Amino acid sequence: MLIKNGKVIIFEDNDVKVKELDIKIQGSKIEKLAKNIKPQENEKVIDASHKVVMPGLINTHAHIAMSIFRGTFEGCDLYTWLNEKIWPIEARLTEEDVYNASMLSILEMISTGTTCVNDHYFFSEKIREALTKSKMRAVITRVLMDNDGQEASQNRINEFIHLFETRDKNNNLITYTVSPHGLYTCSGKVLEKSRELALKYNLPVHIHFLESISEIEDIKKLHGSTASKVLKKYFDGIHTILAHGVKLSDEDIEILKTMDCGIAHNPISNFRLGCKIADVTKYLYNGINVALGTDGQGSGNNLDMFETMKIAALAQGGIHENEARITSKDIIKMATISGAQLLGLDNKVGSIEEGKEADIIIVDLMPRLDNIKTIPNNDIISNLVYNTDGRSVDTTIVGGEILMENRKMKFITAEEIINKFEK
Amino acid sequence: MLIKNGKVIIFEDNDVKVKELDIKIQGSKIEKLAKNIKPQENEKVIDASHKVVMPGLINTHAHIAMSIFRGTFEGCDLYTWLNEKIWPIEARLTEEDVYNASMLSILEMISTGTTCVNDHYFFSEKIREALTKSKMRAVITRVLMDNDGQEASQNRINEFIHLFETRDKNNNLITYTVSPHGLYTCSGKVLEKSRELALKYNLPVHIHFLESISEIEDIKKLHGSTASKVLKKYFDGIHTILAHGVKLSDEDIEILKTMDCGIAHNPISNFRLGCKIADVTKYLYNGINVALGTDGQGSGNNLDMFETMKIAALAQGGIHENEARITSKDIIKMATISGAQLLGLDNKVGSIEEGKEADIIIVDLMPRLDNIKTIPNNDIISNLVYNTDGRSVDTTIVGGEILMENRKMKFITAEEIINKFEK
Repeated sequence: MLIKNGKVIIFEDNDVKVKELDIKIQGSKIEKLAKNIKPQENEKVIDASHKVVMPGLINTHAHIAMSIFRGTFEGCDLYTWLNEKIWPIEARLTEEDVYNASMLSILEMISTGTTCVNDHYFFSEKIREALTKSKMRAVITRVLMDNDGQEASQNRINEFIHLFETRDKNNNLITYTVSPHGLYTCSGKVLEKSRELALKYNLPVHIHFLESISEIEDIKKLHGSTASKVLKKYFDGIHTILAHGVKLSDEDIEILKTMDCGIAHNPISNFRLGCKIADVTKYLYNGINVALGTDGQGSGNNLDMFETMKIAALAQGGIHENEARITSKDIIKMATISGAQLLGLDNKVGSIEEGKEADIIIVDLMPRLDNIKTIPNNDIISNLVYNTDGRSVDTTIVGGEILMENRKMKFITAEEIINKFEK
Repeated sequence: MLIKNGKVIIFEDNDVKVKELDIKIQGSKIEKLAKNIKPQENEKVIDASHKVVMPGLINTHAHIAMSIFRGTFEGCDLYTWLNEKIWPIEARLTEEDVYNASMLSILEMISTGTTCVNDHYFFSEKIREALTKSKMRAVITRVLMDNDGQEASQNRINEFIHLFETRDKNNNLITYTVSPHGLYTCSGKVLEKSRELALKYNLPVHIHFLESISEIEDIKKLHGSTASKVLKKYFDGIHTILAHGVKLSDEDIEILKTMDCGIAHNPISNFRLGCKIADVTKYLYNGINVALGTDGQGSGNNLDMFETMKIAALAQGGIHENEARITSKDIIKMATISGAQLLGLDNKVGSIEEGKEADIIIVDLMPRLDNIKTIPNNDIISNLVYNTDGRSVDTTIVGGEILMENRKMKFITAEEIINKFEK
C-alpha cells in the first residue's frame, strides 16, 4: 500500500516537522518514507493530497466499557463519583453490557483517529473479544483491588491470570499490564501480588496515582508512607504507567525521576472531577515522560484524542501565568510517541518511521465549510491541536490494515453497533 | 414557518428544560410555541425530529477580522502578543483585508450556530458591510484608544461618529457600542469622551477589563486608582460590557455589583495568553452577569461557541477543587440569554419565547457515526456542552430568516468566501 502526496508529521532533530512525503507500507510495517515513490502494479494507493498524515493517536488511560456512563453525574468529586455513582452500577453490569459498551467506544476511537488504547477494567475477556474483532491495537488488563475484602480480591487475581494465560500468542496487537486500581484501594498484599505478577509475566504496571487531593492522606493511613515512597517500594525496577499524577509534590517528582515510570495525563477527567490541573509542563521539564489519555466517558467526555490534545494544551495556561509552557508540538508528541514510550511500545509504534508498524491516520484539513476552523492553515501543528476534532480523521490504519477509509469502517459496522447499544 | 418535532431548549422556573414543542415563526418573530401545531397551506416546515432546537448562540466578545491571525503566536503573554505581534501587523491591514477576514468569520459563526456577535475592531464600516450582506445579528463599534497620541485618537473618535451617524435606521439587526480599548490603553480623556458618546447616543460601553495581571499596576500608574474605581468613575450608570474580567479582587466584585455591567468570559483566549482562569462561578454566585465570548482567532482558537461552552464548563474544575461550581445548564444560559442581557438585547433575543425575535439554531444529534460522541444521549444538556461542536449545527435562523439550512448558506457562498480569503 502507498500513501501519496500527504503532509506527513515526523519527529526529527528533536523537533516536530511537516514534510511532503509518500509512505510505502509492506505487510504490517512502514517500508519506505520518501518523495515521489512510484506505485507498483495493482498496489493500493491512498491519495492524501492536501491532507495531514500522522502517527495514530495513543490513548494511554481509558475504561472503554464506560461509554455507558457518558454525560452522567456532573459536578461530583472523585470519591463521591466512585462510591455513590459508579461502583454500585458497575456491580450490576453484565459481560454483554461490557462487550457492547466497548464496541461503541472502539467505533468512537477508530473514527476519531486512535489506533492504540490502554484499558483498565473488568470482564476483560469480553473487551478483548471486541478489540480483536475490530483489529485495533490495545493494552488490556483485569483491574485488581481489595478494598472490598480478600475473597473478591482473589477472584480478580484469578481472572487476571486467566485473561493472560488464555491470550492468543499470535496476536501482536494486544498486550497486557498488571493493574492494581490505586494505592488508596489496594493493600500491600495486592501491591506485592501485582509486583510478583509483573515480574513473572514481564509486564508493565498500570495504576491510578495521585489523581485527587483526598488520596494523599488516605494512602498515608493505609500504607504509613507517602504515595511515591509506597510506589517505589513495590514497583521499583518495573515499568509503571501512572494514570493522572495531578498532585505530585516536588518530593514525588524527585522519587519518580529515579523510577522507570511516566504519567498518563487526563485533563478532561481532572477538570470534570474538580481535581485541578496537573503541572505537566513541570513534569516534562524534569524529564518525566508525559502522555495523554481520555479516561472513561463517565468522568471524561469522550474518547476523541484531538479534544484531549486541545484541552491539555490550553490547560497549562491556567496554571502558568506569563510563563514558558508546553506547546502544540509537545502535545503532538504526547499523543503519539510519548504514549508509545509510556506503554512500552515505542520500538513498534508512535511515529512514522521506516521499520515501524504502520499505525497511521489521515486527517482531512481541506479548505471547505466543514473545516472552516482550520482556515487559514497558517500553522498545521497548531491547527491540529487547537482547531481539529476527531471528525476530521478520514482514514485509520493499524499494523498496515485499513480499519476506516473515508469514514467507512472495514471490520465492524457502525450502524449495527449503534443500534445494538441503543437497544 | 414552522419548526416541528424538535427537542426544544427553554428557560422556565429558573431552570433549563428540554421539551418536545413546535415553533411557529411569523415574520421575524416567534408567534407560538406549543405541541402539535398544524402547518398552514404552503407554509415552510422544518422537520426537527430527533434534533435539538435552541436559542442562537451569542458571542459577547470577538474581533471578527482577526480570522487572519488564526494559529499564530503560540505561548505569548498579552503584552508581548499585542505590542510585538498583533499591532504591527494590524497597522498594515487594508479595508479589503478586514472585509474578507470578517466574511470568513461570519461563515464560521453561522455554520457553528452563532446568531449574534459583539465585535470590537476598526475599519468597521467594512465589517458592517459584511454583516449586512450575511443578515447576522451583530453589535459593532470602532475601538477608541490614545496610547499612540492624540491625533490618532481623534481620528478614531471621528471614525466612530461617522460609523454611527451613517447607520441604516431600518436595520434592526445591527446595533452599536462605544468601545474604549481598555483602561491601560486609554487616558482619562478618551474615557471621558466615551462616556459622553455613550450618553449622547444611548449606547452601551464595551471595554477590555482586567484580562491580565500586568494591567493592575499599569492602570494604577495611568489613572492613580484601581481598575474598578476608574471604571465606576467614568461609566457608572451606563450599561457596560467587560471583556475578560479574569483578575477581579473581592473589592472589584463589590464595586461591580453596584454598577450596570457584566462579564464577557473568554476562557480559550485566557488560557492561550497565560492569563489563568476567571472565577466565573464566584461572579455568578455574587449576582454578576456572566456571558461567553470567543475573542478573536488570534488569541482564541476559533469562533465556535460550542467549544467555548465546553471549555468554560471544564475550566471551573481547574480552580474549584471538590467544590460546587457552575454546571452545563448554567453554561447554556451563559451562551444565550445571559449573552443577550449583557448586550442589552434580552427583550429581543436569547431565548425561545413567544414574542421574541426568531434567532434559533437546530443541532443534529441523531445517533450515527459522526455523532458518536453524543451516544448514549443520557443527558441532552450535558452532551450539548461537553460532546458537541459547531459542525453539528444544521440550521441557523436569525430574525425569522434562514441563514443556513442543512449546512447550506442562503445569503452568502461558502466556496466564494473561502477562495477569496485563501487568495
